[in-house]
Amino acid sequence: MTNPLVIFAPSGKRGRFPVGTPVLAAARQLGVDLDSVCGGRGICSKCQVSPALGEFPKFGVTVAEDALSPWNAVEARNEKRGLKPGRRLGCQATIQSDVVIDVPPESQVHRQVVRKAASERTIEMDPATRRFFVAIAEPDMHNPSGDLQRLRDALRESWGIANLNVPLSVLTRLQSTLRAGDWQVTCTVFQPHDGQPHLLDVEAGFVDTPLLGLAIDLGSTTIAGHLCDLTTGAVLGSAGIMNPQIRFGEDLMSRVSYAMLNPGGAAEMTAVVRQALEALAVEVAADAGATPAAVVETAIVCNPVMHHLLLGIDPVELGQSPFALATSDSVSLAAAKLGLSSIHPEARAYLLPCIAGHVGADAAAVVLSEEPDQQDALTLVIDVGTNAEIVLGNRERVLACSSPTGPAFEGAQISSGQRAAPGAIERVEIDPETKEPRFRVVGCDLWSDDPGFAVATAVSGVTGICGSGIIEAVAEMRMAGLLDASGLIGSAEQTGSARCAPDGRTHSYLLHDGTAEGGPRISVTQGDIRAIQLAKSALYAGARLLMDELGVDTVERIVLAGAFGAHISPKHAMVLGMIPDAPLEAVTSAGNAAGTGARIALLNRASRARIEQTVRRITKVETAIAPRFQDHFVNANALPHATDPFTELARVVRLPDVSFNAARSLTKRRRQRRQPGTEGAD
Amino acid sequence: MTNPLVIFAPSGKRGRFPVGTPVLAAARQLGVDLDSVCGGRGICSKCQVSPALGEFPKFGVTVAEDALSPWNAVEARNEKRGLKPGRRLGCQATIQSDVVIDVPPESQVHRQVVRKAASERTIEMDPATRRFFVAIAEPDMHNPSGDLQRLRDALRESWGIANLNVPLSVLTRLQSTLRAGDWQVTCTVFQPHDGQPHLLDVEAGFVDTPLLGLAIDLGSTTIAGHLCDLTTGAVLGSAGIMNPQIRFGEDLMSRVSYAMLNPGGAAEMTAVVRQALEALAVEVAADAGATPAAVVETAIVCNPVMHHLLLGIDPVELGQSPFALATSDSVSLAAAKLGLSSIHPEARAYLLPCIAGHVGADAAAVVLSEEPDQQDALTLVIDVGTNAEIVLGNRERVLACSSPTGPAFEGAQISSGQRAAPGAIERVEIDPETKEPRFRVVGCDLWSDDPGFAVATAVSGVTGICGSGIIEAVAEMRMAGLLDASGLIGSAEQTGSARCAPDGRTHSYLLHDGTAEGGPRISVTQGDIRAIQLAKSALYAGARLLMDELGVDTVERIVLAGAFGAHISPKHAMVLGMIPDAPLEAVTSAGNAAGTGARIALLNRASRARIEQTVRRITKVETAIAPRFQDHFVNANALPHATDPFTELARVVRLPDVSFNAARSLTKRRRQRRQPGTEGAD
Repeated sequence: MTNPLVIFAPSGKRGRFPVGTPVLAAARQLGVDLDSVCGGRGICSKCQVSPALGEFPKFGVTVAEDALSPWNAVEARNEKRGLKPGRRLGCQATIQSDVVIDVPPESQVHRQVVRKAASERTIEMDPATRRFFVAIAEPDMHNPSGDLQRLRDALRESWGIANLNVPLSVLTRLQSTLRAGDWQVTCTVFQPHDGQPHLLDVEAGFVDTPLLGLAIDLGSTTIAGHLCDLTTGAVLGSAGIMNPQIRFGEDLMSRVSYAMLNPGGAAEMTAVVRQALEALAVEVAADAGATPAAVVETAIVCNPVMHHLLLGIDPVELGQSPFALATSDSVSLAAAKLGLSSIHPEARAYLLPCIAGHVGADAAAVVLSEEPDQQDALTLVIDVGTNAEIVLGNRERVLACSSPTGPAFEGAQISSGQRAAPGAIERVEIDPETKEPRFRVVGCDLWSDDPGFAVATAVSGVTGICGSGIIEAVAEMRMAGLLDASGLIGSAEQTGSARCAPDGRTHSYLLHDGTAEGGPRISVTQGDIRAIQLAKSALYAGARLLMDELGVDTVERIVLAGAFGAHISPKHAMVLGMIPDAPLEAVTSAGNAAGTGARIALLNRASRARIEQTVRRITKVETAIAPRFQDHFVNANALPHATDPFTELARVVRLPDVSFNAARSLTKRRRQRRQPGTEGAD
Repeated sequence: MTNPLVIFAPSGKRGRFPVGTPVLAAARQLGVDLDSVCGGRGICSKCQVSPALGEFPKFGVTVAEDALSPWNAVEARNEKRGLKPGRRLGCQATIQSDVVIDVPPESQVHRQVVRKAASERTIEMDPATRRFFVAIAEPDMHNPSGDLQRLRDALRESWGIANLNVPLSVLTRLQSTLRAGDWQVTCTVFQPHDGQPHLLDVEAGFVDTPLLGLAIDLGSTTIAGHLCDLTTGAVLGSAGIMNPQIRFGEDLMSRVSYAMLNPGGAAEMTAVVRQALEALAVEVAADAGATPAAVVETAIVCNPVMHHLLLGIDPVELGQSPFALATSDSVSLAAAKLGLSSIHPEARAYLLPCIAGHVGADAAAVVLSEEPDQQDALTLVIDVGTNAEIVLGNRERVLACSSPTGPAFEGAQISSGQRAAPGAIERVEIDPETKEPRFRVVGCDLWSDDPGFAVATAVSGVTGICGSGIIEAVAEMRMAGLLDASGLIGSAEQTGSARCAPDGRTHSYLLHDGTAEGGPRISVTQGDIRAIQLAKSALYAGARLLMDELGVDTVERIVLAGAFGAHISPKHAMVLGMIPDAPLEAVTSAGNAAGTGARIALLNRASRARIEQTVRRITKVETAIAPRFQDHFVNANALPHATDPFTELARVVRLPDVSFNAARSLTKRRRQRRQPGTEGAD
């Protein structure tokens, strides 16, 4: 008689096994992804499976009621531990005849986790840190060996873990723990993708409390943390705090200057950012009702200056040519070395690799999240922040650069600019006929001309303009003919709108006058326009530089990443010429792609190997020394652009052909005539 | 024309190389051991060689005057740096015609070091920590990579060092050091025998100051440190200090008891022993005129209780059956974790493996030093201290045990006992006719009956008896007929000596009466004899147990190790029955074998792999549970032994057949008759 046939779903893996083979053993032999923490001892309830009964024509088998051995006492005990009705324990149920076994997602180690968020990223679970339950041999005076050696033997035999590094803090507690657990212990083991496994903890008996990880997106302005369950992949909580380094300088270069000009300045900034990470870890754990000590791993993404300051490396070299990084590879170290003292004392930290002196681990995280290197379509990924990370590529080749946009896109350096807080104008529309604006503010879904707006915003007031608001305002002004292609605001006479008021030698456009209610007058000034022009020129020039390198004039997809990217309207961004001309439907938002990349690196160790490999293949382009960057920057000053045609934009938006300065318009036309020849000579 | 023939001496390695090949390149290709720290840049002066000129019939070559290229400017510069007259730099001199090249010992990495000391050990240099000079590529903005990555590349390309672990403390200083050294740096790299290399330091430019290591023999009573040059192997200084744990208990078990009875007691003992090691490191470096920060490695040997207390592991399990070690493998860790904070901040520590719960890394060190596993002759190695480590074996098999001799052999628990300090009686002779003693004290070469003895010892006085003194005194008393085989001191009437004075219900033998000069009366009491009998019985029983395991009644060689072993006279030890009967010339002293073992492990990393391998093969015998240990212990109580014949001893010493207690003698004879039958039943 042939052995019974066992078919696992959804993998479809199949094989014949002798009657009496436990389902878990069959799964392991076939390489089916079926979890087990206790190693088949009927303790952990992880290896739950659902036998499927009846006819399965597609498999050619009929499954009888008694295809598996009868329900046993161990399984009955596990009902209290979460064994669900209709399910069996793979380590207890044995094969009796042909059977089809469903492995539910919760029983898979490498289950896929979809986060319901802007990015809808699917992450395959493959955490570096996991728990392993083992029973170890008791000491034998006649055959003496250390307790650690017998623990190593058990981990090697039961779980294939060899060459384990054991820190002194675990070794000193080992003997009492083994005895407290009556020679059964749960080991927390960090198994990196590229090195020796570390024993992070040993706890008496079978332990099943969640193991947590913290994904950190360390930005120049804000620091975001996402607390994740390392087994399920669930995000248990998120928190964001300000980067306290802001008091040493708003943007990266001012912080580098602070380090250069003040002895001990770098160390000071290292200390405050480490304190902030520690506070963030404590806060996010508390919010999720977890103990910080349950956090056994952290994955960190950040730009090169943050990267160096966090590690305690003086960033001085990043402030001057040739912008040499101290290290560009990923960094794996004890989290305690970064001052994370409240989380698990042996917790590990992983910093993603940097791409170049100005293109950091945050850009690497964006690549990990958006995977331009896996796309057929030529994809441009722009992560907009104080510094913009720009990645362009497809399966064949990927290029990256960063561009110093400055903080204008975040509402800084804008006359009425403010951070995105309640009361900040975030959306703007200007009627092209009447030139009258309406707007929405953060914290209120009504437009300013809706009934009830005044009541709804009575508490917050209308206090200023945030980043997305100023972009929309400038773009709307251009579309309404209040602003010409050179970026000049027209006078009341030129535009026919009394809101265009003289302001020194230039004009301002009045968006909102709150003085009657004791609030501010909110205008878009000529200076605001110039600040946005500088920022968007830097952004566009960076993207254009990468396109030059690839020899292309258009891209097929544009992904706007970054928390701010999520709020930018593609149409308005294109009217400003922030991004290259493309069909509007080809422009999507990826939400906080850097943060998503950190989460992927945290939950999937294979992704660490992947991004380390990918980063080496990326062509780095240094904007600061590219001769054409300056040309691109100058041409990108116009709205949307002095020379690039923006034909896709023209299909959906007609930009009024206004000009508010005859001399300037003439100059522009001359330059346009000269430009094609100049480009041809390149 | 065939290429010139190059022959290296003393290795005899030879090969043909194109004209113009540097001598260093030829040496490397042939695997000749020729040092170079700068990688052939003419900076380090390490690759010095001596060309030998003239006829070499045994090699079949004639070496012409111009067999090597002419002396060059780089070599001229190196004369100031130690290039000796008549020598050439291997990296500068190129091969022109057939040549014989002498590699002097100082130019060999793996040179052999012989220490002129009791043990005359030859150690082949193979240090785990060495310096490597590299020139690294400067950063290139157009092909960005981290400074660390380019340093890694250089170390891999020039020195074959891959997969280097770089601590944060080195990474944070890397950029400034590379620039200070104008892209030439000297790296200190720890390359263990069993794991990932560690970058301990990076220094600007070419650095040639000595790298030091510290071999530590951490005993229950004393801690000895030997400061070694890791390049030459020279011992630059040695120091010994008391183990401050003595205040918690004289012997090991009393310290374990202290840990069991006092909460925090183990931590207290850990703290003091770590402080002591730190003080020792500072002291030994200061004595040698070196900075402690030059110490980049330490190798430590100790018994299991010291081992656990040093690591911060509560030794409670070592005090109770089954005597389980927390870890038996060797331990490699950052020395800073052991509180060694004055030596190099990234210095490594290596603790030799333990053999069993009562047989520690000190026994492993004795095996490493005395190599019983490499001997044809069956060798018994006894390291006498408060605990005796006993190893028996040859090429085929090695066994080990430890035996709790107690501190009597060190002068403790003896009525006039004291440590070996000036004034302590260390040698004793008793005239068998007159029964009159003479003796020598520590710090004076004269015997007590030599003219001038009183003057020479006026300052120290005669203050007590140290360990070797009490052994000689008891053995001499036995030889002089003052003591019978059962260990009973005879009366003045029985012995004919007035020095045998009544002392309660027993007798004492007066060795020295110093009361006239205000000094003590120094006697050997019946209690002293009993203490020595207990100690020597434990020692003998341990050795006998191992001989039982091997099924032998005699051994071919006996090595007495330990600082104390150096002072024991083999004849007196055998009269006491401390050691098994053997020809006197087969008994040798190995000096401080454990300390020598520590030094070998420090200077030769292959020896670490070797002893780890050997330790696994050693059969461990637990004296505390061996049923026959008690029998052996009882029979070993007699002087020299109740049942073992000691025929070799009888060839050189006639022991008077005296008996000072008729009843006891009768009992003894009855037991002797019964014993053979008992043994046969085993």
